[in-house]
Amino acid sequence: MKIGFIGLGAIGTPMAQNLVAADFDVTVWNRSADKCAPLVEAGATQADTPAGCAACDVMITMLADDDALASVVAEHGLIEAMGDDTVHVNMATVSVACARDMADRHEKAGKTYISAPVLGRPDIAKAAKLNIVTAGADAAIERARPALDTMGAKVWPAGSEPYRANVIKLATNYMLMTAVETMGEAAAMTAKYGIEPGDFLDIITHSVFAAPAYQGYAPAMAKRDYDNPEGFKLKLGAKDMDLALAAARAENMAMPVGAAVRERLSEALAAGEGELDLSALAEVSRRHGHLD
Amino acid sequence: MKIGFIGLGAIGTPMAQNLVAADFDVTVWNRSADKCAPLVEAGATQADTPAGCAACDVMITMLADDDALASVVAEHGLIEAMGDDTVHVNMATVSVACARDMADRHEKAGKTYISAPVLGRPDIAKAAKLNIVTAGADAAIERARPALDTMGAKVWPAGSEPYRANVIKLATNYMLMTAVETMGEAAAMTAKYGIEPGDFLDIITHSVFAAPAYQGYAPAMAKRDYDNPEGFKLKLGAKDMDLALAAARAENMAMPVGAAVRERLSEALAAGEGELDLSALAEVSRRHGHLD
Amino acid sequence: MKIGFIGLGAIGTPMAQNLVAADFDVTVWNRSADKCAPLVEAGATQADTPAGCAACDVMITMLADDDALASVVAEHGLIEAMGDDTVHVNMATVSVACARDMADRHEKAGKTYISAPVLGRPDIAKAAKLNIVTAGADAAIERARPALDTMGAKVWPAGSEPYRANVIKLATNYMLMTAVETMGEAAAMTAKYGIEPGDFLDIITHSVFAAPAYQGYAPAMAKRDYDNPEGFKLKLGAKDMDLALAAARAENMAMPVGAAVRERLSEALAAGEGELDLSALAEVSRRHGHLD
Amino acid sequence: MKIGFIGLGAIGTPMAQNLVAADFDVTVWNRSADKCAPLVEAGATQADTPAGCAACDVMITMLADDDALASVVAEHGLIEAMGDDTVHVNMATVSVACARDMADRHEKAGKTYISAPVLGRPDIAKAAKLNIVTAGADAAIERARPALDTMGAKVWPAGSEPYRANVIKLATNYMLMTAVETMGEAAAMTAKYGIEPGDFLDIITHSVFAAPAYQGYAPAMAKRDYDNPEGFKLKLGAKDMDLALAAARAENMAMPVGAAVRERLSEALAAGEGELDLSALAEVSRRHGHLD
Repeated sequence: MKIGFIGLGAIGTPMAQNLVAADFDVTVWNRSADKCAPLVEAGATQADTPAGCAACDVMITMLADDDALASVVAEHGLIEAMGDDTVHVNMATVSVACARDMADRHEKAGKTYISAPVLGRPDIAKAAKLNIVTAGADAAIERARPALDTMGAKVWPAGSEPYRANVIKLATNYMLMTAVETMGEAAAMTAKYGIEPGDFLDIITHSVFAAPAYQGYAPAMAKRDYDNPEGFKLKLGAKDMDLALAAARAENMAMPVGAAVRERLSEALAAGEGELDLSALAEVSRRHGHLD
Repeated sequence: MKIGFIGLGAIGTPMAQNLVAADFDVTVWNRSADKCAPLVEAGATQADTPAGCAACDVMITMLADDDALASVVAEHGLIEAMGDDTVHVNMATVSVACARDMADRHEKAGKTYISAPVLGRPDIAKAAKLNIVTAGADAAIERARPALDTMGAKVWPAGSEPYRANVIKLATNYMLMTAVETMGEAAAMTAKYGIEPGDFLDIITHSVFAAPAYQGYAPAMAKRDYDNPEGFKLKLGAKDMDLALAAARAENMAMPVGAAVRERLSEALAAGEGELDLSALAEVSRRHGHLD
Repeated sequence: MKIGFIGLGAIGTPMAQNLVAADFDVTVWNRSADKCAPLVEAGATQADTPAGCAACDVMITMLADDDALASVVAEHGLIEAMGDDTVHVNMATVSVACARDMADRHEKAGKTYISAPVLGRPDIAKAAKLNIVTAGADAAIERARPALDTMGAKVWPAGSEPYRANVIKLATNYMLMTAVETMGEAAAMTAKYGIEPGDFLDIITHSVFAAPAYQGYAPAMAKRDYDNPEGFKLKLGAKDMDLALAAARAENMAMPVGAAVRERLSEALAAGEGELDLSALAEVSRRHGHLD
Repeated sequence: MKIGFIGLGAIGTPMAQNLVAADFDVTVWNRSADKCAPLVEAGATQADTPAGCAACDVMITMLADDDALASVVAEHGLIEAMGDDTVHVNMATVSVACARDMADRHEKAGKTYISAPVLGRPDIAKAAKLNIVTAGADAAIERARPALDTMGAKVWPAGSEPYRANVIKLATNYMLMTAVETMGEAAAMTAKYGIEPGDFLDIITHSVFAAPAYQGYAPAMAKRDYDNPEGFKLKLGAKDMDLALAAARAENMAMPVGAAVRERLSEALAAGEGELDLSALAEVSRRHGHLD
């Protein structure tokens, strides 16, 4: 199976590596071409343009945001370059509006598009343990499945309209942001009573909150070491929260807790913590507690 | 080992049953005496007054709230009735102020008090899988440990001052309330886009949020069946949230997300959902989404 | 007309002074007796106990909070000491529960009680420009009216059940706290764009927001000088907000905006600004904006 | 003085009428041409295109939003059509980003642009009592001043960079939205205690909150009659709130109270109240109180 892979960021790179390691015929492209070198070394082919990845069975895009995807599609005639049987699998986190627009454009061009956003951070991607939410035509998902199964632990089908997978992804990230914020608030509150954050976090992440959403962020909070290149950058969390709130707002769906969490993300950004791991949200609560 | 057990509510009853089943010599008391019958049938002794449970190695109180504890202690001379070696193990969820007051009173009377609140719902109590957070003198905790080990999966020591265990319990319940509210908001938001709540909840509780805080409430949300006698009553969740916010407020610790969640609990209470399981919070979000 | 006046705080003192200046026969009492001296100098009589103020036509209480009122009433047999025709006019800000309890106790004792909380700060009290919300039996309000008219610009009748006046007072203070917080947020937001807070506040308080709630706090915000002995202490604002939220909660009435404002008050208290004027809330927003 | 006037909406129409009545030489344009008829009848000239309004001393734009302004400017070559001495006075509520972009484009084209958003509703515009916040070059403001003085009660200069006036306008509208929401919450809370909303609103709008922000919306709340063609449509309030929050977010300025208010606006929109006057926000609180 021939796979095109566009976008070699923190999560895209290990995903592509896993495809190469599984002996798929992978062609890669990235805006900063130097990111391609390790993949080429592992056996991938490097394309000169995004369109060079389009003549394949499965074309995966894993770009930073709506704008990055839109500009790659528009500037490089990506949809036109796709083969009639190529399935475009957009695995990035994009807005609901963007997902709908992509589905429309592909349909008008007679091409095939599915959304397949991933749940998990870079380390999970590296371990090929991602949860992948897919939506689009069943046949298209099936054609992409060998690639998806290689990158993830489980594929969750979410219906025939691609945007549905994106809604689920955004709702999940909204929950994640709230979980991490809440854990930070609770750790600071207990710290006001003299309890070591590490002790508190140890209890909850081994009992009521023994799940990746908490276990993936508690150790950094306990150590107060938020400089994690394989983490989930706080500023990207804020971006995802904006997309989730925009999806809610488009339906006039009030999300008061989400709105409160978004303001805390602003506080962290104002403090210059946007490049740190999302767990740095705990520092906002610590400052509120005047704990240092 | 002789155990006194005061308070046979939804969680207290299975805890006491497990002690009886483990062949401890258990004496029970409950304000509504009829709750004692099943325990007596299983082998427990019924006391006429709370003080009748006090002549023992470990006296466990599991009363509904601060007021219930205070009135039992005051009206029945409970502290005075304790033996010199009796350890009073308060396993109920009480306020930080109440825990401090209890510790003071016992100390002044030359008696021994520890806090040992539990994490878990009635079904977890029945399965003896509770997580028990303990704080107080090490020796006292050790004396109570055979009983604690019988009722719980794990005992988490949290320091020598009893109120610390209560702070941890309240912070955990604050997180739980927020987790359930968030899950409800996210399920309603995705439902606005045509996704079945059960499908969404299935994905998240088997991936990023695969923890009791979510798995224990998602099925009821999916089925929209909140009438669960072994559940966690929403009105008790609101009470715990008030205790958590009071603990934060006593330290001038801002908890904006908790405050937002508390208002949602008010919405559910206003809709007459206080007696339902906490998962009924999802109905608040559904109403906001005009989903019915 | 003989008037008893109990409680000579920041607002009580100028109110009592205005009564003395209007030639009423005024007897005063205050826990810290030294506060009575200026009143005595102006012509008032000083009582040794609160009960010494009770043999009068109109007995005004202006105590700090529920507890202060309850303890004066309980310790000094205040209700019993009232004459059969004495009208107890409670002008302090107390909880709805306290107001109801007071009305009950007076009724049981065959005495007369009305609530008459005031809208306005110490400077307004000094100028006898208070707005006074009254509730209770019409005849009782009429008997107290000469005194009320002397202290205030306008008396607003609010029904026959005393607690109603307190509900209105608490709702008004909730709005006030929110108005001041909002003004602080907006001033900080415009300051991020280089606009002097004084310039912004000048525009709004002379146009859309030309009302005491804003004009009374904007100058201090503009000068960032919050040390105002005649102001409204921020910590008392937090206390009033708690009473307002408690009144809402007792009816399961969600107040999400009020809840958010309460957390900002916590931030100010945590920063040690509780003794400053309420306008110091603006500093919370300035810190969020990293404006210094 | 020759004036071009583009955009005859609910506020633009009375503004233009006042200019015509003051004997300025006014040329008008509106997308729906029928809106021009009353102006023409009063003495204005109707232009066939927006550019037909550009050959004048003062060209006023009063379009619905950023997009409307951008499309009129782009499609009709509006900036190019302006005379060298024409001052473009944008009086509409636009985003900070839009205001900055407009200033840039005019500067590049050697043309003159100022921002002059207005505070006030249609009835205030009709009475020529608007408060007008202006920012831009002093000389340009002075050239426009005769027109501004005709339409408003007062002109507030806010510096030389046009976007500053827009920031002030957005911050003011953020405060307005919060004021109206707060008034609705307070009225519902007092109503839970049996107080007629009209009675409560009467007290506060004649005392602590005696300002247009409250007095302009309280009567509709008291009557629960929100169908006001000269009012401020709730959906436009939500739009302005989004612009204010976007301006805050661009500076990472947390606005938790504003965020909470925005969610209430969503509730009103979800209930189909977007076309009603902003005072309909009170119905959200009434529903929370189950008052009907």
